[in-house]
Formats: sequence, C-alpha cells, structure tokens
Amino acid sequence: MDSTKKALSFDIGGTKTIYAIIDENGNFVTQKTKLATPDTADKIFDMFKNIIEENYTDIDIVTISTAGAVNLENTRVCSSTPNLPAGYPDIEFSKLTDKKVFVENDANCAVWSEYACGAAKDCKNTLMITLGTGIGGGVVSNGELVRGYTGAALEVGSMKIFADKRQKCTCGRYDCWESYASGTGLRNTAVAMAKTSPEYKNSLHKDKSPDELTTYDITEGEDKGDRFSELVFSQWHEYIFTGLVSLVDIFNPETVVISGGMGKFANVLQLEERINKESVVTPVKVKHAQTGNDAGMIGAALLGLRKL
Amino acid sequence: MDSTKKALSFDIGGTKTIYAIIDENGNFVTQKTKLATPDTADKIFDMFKNIIEENYTDIDIVTISTAGAVNLENTRVCSSTPNLPAGYPDIEFSKLTDKKVFVENDANCAVWSEYACGAAKDCKNTLMITLGTGIGGGVVSNGELVRGYTGAALEVGSMKIFADKRQKCTCGRYDCWESYASGTGLRNTAVAMAKTSPEYKNSLHKDKSPDELTTYDITEGEDKGDRFSELVFSQWHEYIFTGLVSLVDIFNPETVVISGGMGKFANVLQLEERINKESVVTPVKVKHAQTGNDAGMIGAALLGLRKL
Repeated sequence: MDSTKKALSFDIGGTKTIYAIIDENGNFVTQKTKLATPDTADKIFDMFKNIIEENYTDIDIVTISTAGAVNLENTRVCSSTPNLPAGYPDIEFSKLTDKKVFVENDANCAVWSEYACGAAKDCKNTLMITLGTGIGGGVVSNGELVRGYTGAALEVGSMKIFADKRQKCTCGRYDCWESYASGTGLRNTAVAMAKTSPEYKNSLHKDKSPDELTTYDITEGEDKGDRFSELVFSQWHEYIFTGLVSLVDIFNPETVVISGGMGKFANVLQLEERINKESVVTPVKVKHAQTGNDAGMIGAALLGLRKL
Repeated sequence: MDSTKKALSFDIGGTKTIYAIIDENGNFVTQKTKLATPDTADKIFDMFKNIIEENYTDIDIVTISTAGAVNLENTRVCSSTPNLPAGYPDIEFSKLTDKKVFVENDANCAVWSEYACGAAKDCKNTLMITLGTGIGGGVVSNGELVRGYTGAALEVGSMKIFADKRQKCTCGRYDCWESYASGTGLRNTAVAMAKTSPEYKNSLHKDKSPDELTTYDITEGEDKGDRFSELVFSQWHEYIFTGLVSLVDIFNPETVVISGGMGKFANVLQLEERINKESVVTPVKVKHAQTGNDAGMIGAALLGLRKL
C-alpha cells in the first residue's frame, strides 16, 4: 500500500483555478485541471466542495494557494482581494470538508516551492520577488516562512524608494517600489522618459504620444534593439536594483528568486553583479524562478503536508 | 538546591565591557560590573577567560553580545567591527572554556530582550531599530530571530530611501537610510536645510556656518523651541518614517521598538500614527525600548540559555 501522503492542491486566481493531486515529494499524482474561477463566493465554495468530493478517498489534505493575506490558522483570507468576488474573504475554507484544509498566500506558496524543488532548492534563506502588474514577495528564513503578526508580511511592493513624494502609486500612496519596478512601473518609466529623452524622436514608437506607451511597446522595442526602449529598460533595472539591494541587506538570503510575468524580462546576471558590488552582506545568487505556474499548487501542497 | 539555569553574560562594546550573571527568567543574579574594553584581541580573550574562571562554578553557560555579524554556530564574529581591535573577528570564543559559549550580534540580543521582558513582551513578531551614529535592526518572526544565511540580516541602515544618488553615505554608497535618519542623518539634514531655509537666519545657531552644525545643536535647539531646529526635527522624522513604514510592510510586526542613543528623541506616537495611516498591513504599536543598556546582556543570556 502506498503510504506517501497526498494533497489535493488548488491555485485560485482572478480568472482561472488550477488543481492537481501532489504528493509529499512534490510529484504530481494527477494531471492538472484548469477551470474558470466562478464569479461569486458561493459558487467558488461549491466548486471546491465538488472537486474535493470527487477526490476524497485519494487524499490526506486539501491545500489552497490564494491571493491576499491569510490568517495565522491558515483557514481563510483576511484582506480584500481585488481580483476575486466580494464575499471571498468570508469563506471559511475549513468548512469545505472533514479533512484538514490548509490555505496560504500565493507568494508564500511560490517561495516555498522554489525552496523545496526550484531555483533555491535547499537554500534555507531565500528571498523571492514576483514582478507582475504589481510586486509581491516571500521569504524563507532559516527554513521557515516569514508570515508576520497577521500573515501579511512581505508587502514589498509598498516599500518606498523615494522619500520626497515624487510619483503617486495606483494605491494612492507615493513612491511605492511597484510604481517604478513592476510591469506598471516599466510603463510609468517609459512615459516619463518619453517626455524628456531626445532618443524618443528616433524611437520605434515615436508616432505615439508618450501617454499611449504600453509595457509591451517597451519589451518589444528592447527585443528589436530600439535605443529608447533599451534606455527605459536600463532605468527599470535600476529601480528593480534599488529595492532588491535593500531587501538583500535586510534578509541576507543565500538566493534571490525572481518570478512573475515581468520577471522573465529581468536580467538576473546583471542584477546579481550590481547587488553583490553594493550590498553590505554576503554575496547572493539571483535566479529566475523554475517552478512557474505550478509554484502555487506545489508550495501549498508541501506546506500543508508538513503540518500533518 | 537552585535548579534555575544561569548565564555569565557579557556585552562588549568599543570602549567598555559590562557583565553579570543572569538567570533563565531574565533576573540579575549578580550586580553588573563595568570594565574598559582592552585594546588588543589577545587582551580581550584574557579578560573573558579570567572572569569566566572567577565565576565558573556558578554558571551553566557563557553568553556574549557583540557588534558585528556572528556566524551561524554562534561562536565567533565573521565581519569587521570598526570599534573593536584588529584580530577581534579571529577570536574563537568557544575556546574560552569547556562550558558552552553562545555569541550573538548586539542588535539581535537587544530585540530578543525587548521581546522577552521589554516593550514588546510576548509579541512574537517584533521589529526593533536602533538609532545611533548609524541605524541597526533586529527582528523576531514567529518567536524566532531572523538571522539570514550568514547571520548578517537586518542591515537596515543600508536600505535606500532615494533611487537617484542624492546623498553620499559615509560608507561610500548612496542614499542609505542611516545617512538621513540616524544621529549623523539629523546633522546631515540640518546642514542641508541651513543652506536653504530662511528660518536659519533667525535660529539660535545663526552665527555658525551650516557645516559647523552638530547633532547636539539640533536636539538642544528643538528642546528650546528654536523654529529652525523644529523644522529639521520634523524632516528627520519624515526620513525615519520613510524607512520604518517600508519595514512594517515587509515584516508585518505587532510592535516596533525604537532604541539607541538617538531613539529617545524619536516621537513614537507621531511615528505610530503616520505609519498606521500609510502602511498596507495591520496597525502596529511603536514604543521606546525598555531594557536599555542591559538589553545586550539580557538578550544574549536568554538566547543562550534556551539552547541548553
């Protein structure tokens, strides 16, 4: 008889939900299934309930990777989650089944996945940042997640990289790291530079007004060797560096992992060289994430299974 | 027979070394003794050795709070320590005696002391910053110290609060938090503001050239109601706030403790209000440290004794 413990593990996002059965070694026991995330909290609850019933006899625990800060008991989300329906934070996931249910924030799941079987394998001190529309983060410190008093730690996107109210963030505050170094930040940087840089007149995008520039215009331009796009990219890396070197000095990690939709555009070798030249702590390795879209499911499963 | 375990606990600083026997409840079993720190590594080793011999039969462990990053085995300092003699990082403290020896960084000892019996008593998620000539820090996360890969975590003084190379720090890098928000930072802020502020002409210090201003001039001026000094103080608090709100978003602590020689000048209520208005995580309490000059000794003793 197979005594390996197994999790039915979900990754719930604003548009889609993925799930699979994953064992305690991080192996997929079933293939992944992808569904559209329902548009009400009640329908989300029912979706989970039905899938759990179908798989009930094959699993030891239900694990869920989700956006939002998760309570210290790992049973519910305790903050608003902009891309999920109203009422979502009211779901008490422990009521889904009589088996144990374990819920964790998606960035925490992702850093755990990278630590368990990805780019930071066996690095007990790992920092991960996720570059997307915003910036998220997760830290493993001496083999344990840093979760904070209410499970909301690593809101690194809100770290301030200027102290003089220079640029307003979409959150209403000023100078959040993510307003400079996320995908949105790349666009903000492009718009600001297009208004002053003489290179813009010779750019691929010169026929656009600066305010029409998109993140994609810059990644495409950089790929095609457009000089203006390269300059924007270079400034964007400077902003990524500014926040990242502070986080390295704060956490003294062995490995830094960069993930997220915009993470693939980050030049990890250049960032590693810059950080190790300027940081006051031991040199780090900077790497792209390796567990990709499965990171949430894998991390949730492994974190949940170690609690059994 | 008394079965309470006891540490002979030292706090070694650049000019003086203090020690006492402290029990596992944080109580002082002996009075504190203060000595001048010897001027060579060999003499420091001999000082420790002699004091340990005198107290050998009364103690279970020797604990040492020191400047500098400490190795993961807690037996030696692994970075240069500017105020201690050359050769100090070569001392292998475990060779002092056949009893267990436990060495820890002074900021880590101090945050542990505040968590065990000070301003953050029983707050398992605590952030402490030390405002002095520079800025140091320590964090307790879920009841454990955040130490990092090589024991060098919480170099918060090097966090960047500008991303455009505005002000050079004494360390040679640009825009370190401590070049704005430490005691040195208060002076830097005063010098910069004296050169542009119209209030300086009416200040107590108007007969000084800006470059002659000292940290003490500003703390004294603020105490006497000097308007220019008040403006400098206000800007200094803005700089403290900028770094601190980022750290609160990063660590999601229950309590923030401010210590250090300049810490007493920080307006903790004002900082608490500002942080709780702007941070994206759960509101924090901001407090002055309570265990003062004993924090290093108490923290080292309690951290060491829990390893027995």
